[in-house]
This record gives sequence, C-alpha cells and structure tokens, in this order.
Amino acid sequence: MKSLTKYMTLNVPRRRMFINITPNVEDVVRESGIREGLCLVNAMHITASVFINDDEPGLHQDYETWLEKLAPEKPYSQYHHNGYEDNADAHLKRQVMGREVVVAISNGRLDFGPWEQIFYGEFDGKRPKRYLIKVIGE
Amino acid sequence: MKSLTKYMTLNVPRRRMFINITPNVEDVVRESGIREGLCLVNAMHITASVFINDDEPGLHQDYETWLEKLAPEKPYSQYHHNGYEDNADAHLKRQVMGREVVVAISNGRLDFGPWEQIFYGEFDGKRPKRYLIKVIGE
Amino acid sequence: MKSLTKYMTLNVPRRRMFINITPNVEDVVRESGIREGLCLVNAMHITASVFINDDEPGLHQDYETWLEKLAPEKPYSQYHHNGYEDNADAHLKRQVMGREVVVAISNGRLDFGPWEQIFYGEFDGKRPKRYLIKVIGE
Repeated sequence: MKSLTKYMTLNVPRRRMFINITPNVEDVVRESGIREGLCLVNAMHITASVFINDDEPGLHQDYETWLEKLAPEKPYSQYHHNGYEDNADAHLKRQVMGREVVVAISNGRLDFGPWEQIFYGEFDGKRPKRYLIKVIGE
Repeated sequence: MKSLTKYMTLNVPRRRMFINITPNVEDVVRESGIREGLCLVNAMHITASVFINDDEPGLHQDYETWLEKLAPEKPYSQYHHNGYEDNADAHLKRQVMGREVVVAISNGRLDFGPWEQIFYGEFDGKRPKRYLIKVIGE
Repeated sequence: MKSLTKYMTLNVPRRRMFINITPNVEDVVRESGIREGLCLVNAMHITASVFINDDEPGLHQDYETWLEKLAPEKPYSQYHHNGYEDNADAHLKRQVMGREVVVAISNGRLDFGPWEQIFYGEFDGKRPKRYLIKVIGE
C-alpha cells in the first residue's frame, strides 16, 4: 500500500466562499502514483466544508441564500456559542454541507461522474485556511 | 491490497425516489473477495445521494415531506440556478442527505448495525442514473 | 495492508446527547500500529450520528435547538414513521449531522486540524448504543 498526504493552504478573503479545489486534488493524485485506491479530502477547520457539487455560480448563490435561511448568521445573540465568538452559524452550516469527501481513484484518476467538482466551502473566513488530501492505494 | 470498482445503472422513473441498493453492494463485496477493508458507495450525479437509513416506507414519506419543506422544488424562479434548469432544489436536498457512504468490510461482509440499509436517493430523476461502488482491502 | 476493527458500546442516558469519543478512537489507532492510512468511525444505529466539530457546550446547545427547529420531535403524529415508533425526528436529525467520519492517519496519529474532535450524537437514546471503528493502512 502506498500513501501520500498533503496539507493545502487557501486564502479566503470573504466570510463565506466556495472555492473549486479539484485541480489541486488531481495534482496530488497524479503525484502519488496511485492507480487504484481512495482519496480523502477534508476541511481542517470546523467552520468549513469540503463537498462535491456543480461549478455553477447561480447554484452557489442559492447555497448562500439557503444556508442563511437554515442557519442565519445574525443576530449573533441567538446562539450560546457566541459568548466570545460570532461564528456559531458557521458551525451549523458546515454540518449541512459536510466535512469531507471520499473519492474513488481508478486508473490513476479521480473517478467522477460528469459534473462532479470538489469545493472548499468556508463559512467563517477572512484568513488563510487549510484542508488535507490523503491518497491511499496501489 | 486488492480493489474492485463497479459502475451501477438504475432506472429512476420518478423525479424523487429512494431505492434500496444493499443487495447490489453486497454482491460486489462478495465478488471482490476482500475480507477486511472499506467500501465506498457514491452517487455519480450531483442531484442525488447515497445514504444509510431504515427501509421503512413511512420514513421515506417523511424524508420526502421534510426535504420539500427545507428546500422546496417550486416555484422554480426562487433559485438562481434555474435559468436553464429546474433542479436547483435537487442540488440542495442532496447536500442534506449526503453524496456517499463508506462502510467497513469485516470477515468478507458489509459490517452493519442491525437496521442499516444503503439507499440511492434521487431528487431529479426520470432517467437512468449511475452510482459507483469501490472496494479496497485484503 | 493491516486493519483493526472495534465495536464500542456507550451508555446514553438521555434521548439526545453529544459524547466526545476522540480518546477512544485514538486508543484504537494506537493499538492498530498503523502509521499511514484511514480511520472510519460510524454509528451502528440509524437514529445517531458520528461527526467532527468543536467540544464546546454552548455550541452543543445550539445544535440541540437548531435540530429541533429543523426536525421537531413533537407532535409525534406529524410523521408517518411514528405508527409504532416515536423517533422519526431522530432519523431526520441524523441525516443533517451525518452517519460517519473518515479521518486520515499520519505518523500513527489522527491527522486533525487544531479544533477537530469526534462526537457520537444520539437522537433516540436512553439505552446502550454502539459505534464502529475501523482502521486500515500500514
């Protein structure tokens, strides 16, 4: 069994953003030399998500509106977590969107359906953020 | 390390449906000959989910009602994604239910609690759909 | 490839509870002797979640309030699943919070960001409950 682990850093200038990280994950899979296996990609922050969906700006606007309806940022005082913080909503939003994805690697490539793209979704940004890529297989 | 990858096709006659795919996954695990490892099952479409829950029709009706409340299909015009599409709600519902499951394989079998069953959940069907099963281990 | 599988039992005295199981998972990773690989942790019950977030009591109170708003326990009669049961809401809450986590193992340890902790989240407790830990790698 072979493995490769990479820690990636992203600059996230806004509080909430979706960033397509598929090319970065593809690079790591290629570097690993693994032909058959699994690739884990996870946020290393608990106010962020890694998820797979469409790279379509209208949909990302819909996610923003929808998540704000399900778990509104304000008023900050509605959340117990916000004694010294203002990011409780981000911890909630992250649960809807998920922490991680596991993707099959087949023939040395991410084994995707036609529209699958990997996103880092941040809900409490405005600073550098990290995610982890781990590839195992042969 | 051994691995086996299968692409499965389902006919999905309705827009929204939950289909129990556990026997298909069990067959692939058996065919792989893997005794100890992990099994990834994921939707290859971004308007669909693979998830684990109870095979109980009342519960599936509750999921349908609940997801329609959290992310209603109509009016289509409420979503930016629906310029040329009508399936934005399906992309949202899929995030609640999840893209994939990872299941332990122990002693050559899916290592499940007593009620766990794997479902393909489609939110924009009426055509054939695909999911992926990948087994790795020894 | 090496692997280790453990079935853990928890006493869950209340209907809904979040229990930090990180030390238990760390023990199993250590016992496995695996240096590089993946660790799957999943609930074996379909009214429960395993998820990663902050070990902060205010946030857990916020999760409780938020999940009750998204999928209220009562009135029981609002759910079709509740013919002979009263736990439909628990099957819904579990989908928001997720069934499982997959964590990288690097240098023999859970490869976590600074605040990541693993929780067992029960939504229909008051009895002993089980979760599964499976480590594979080398």
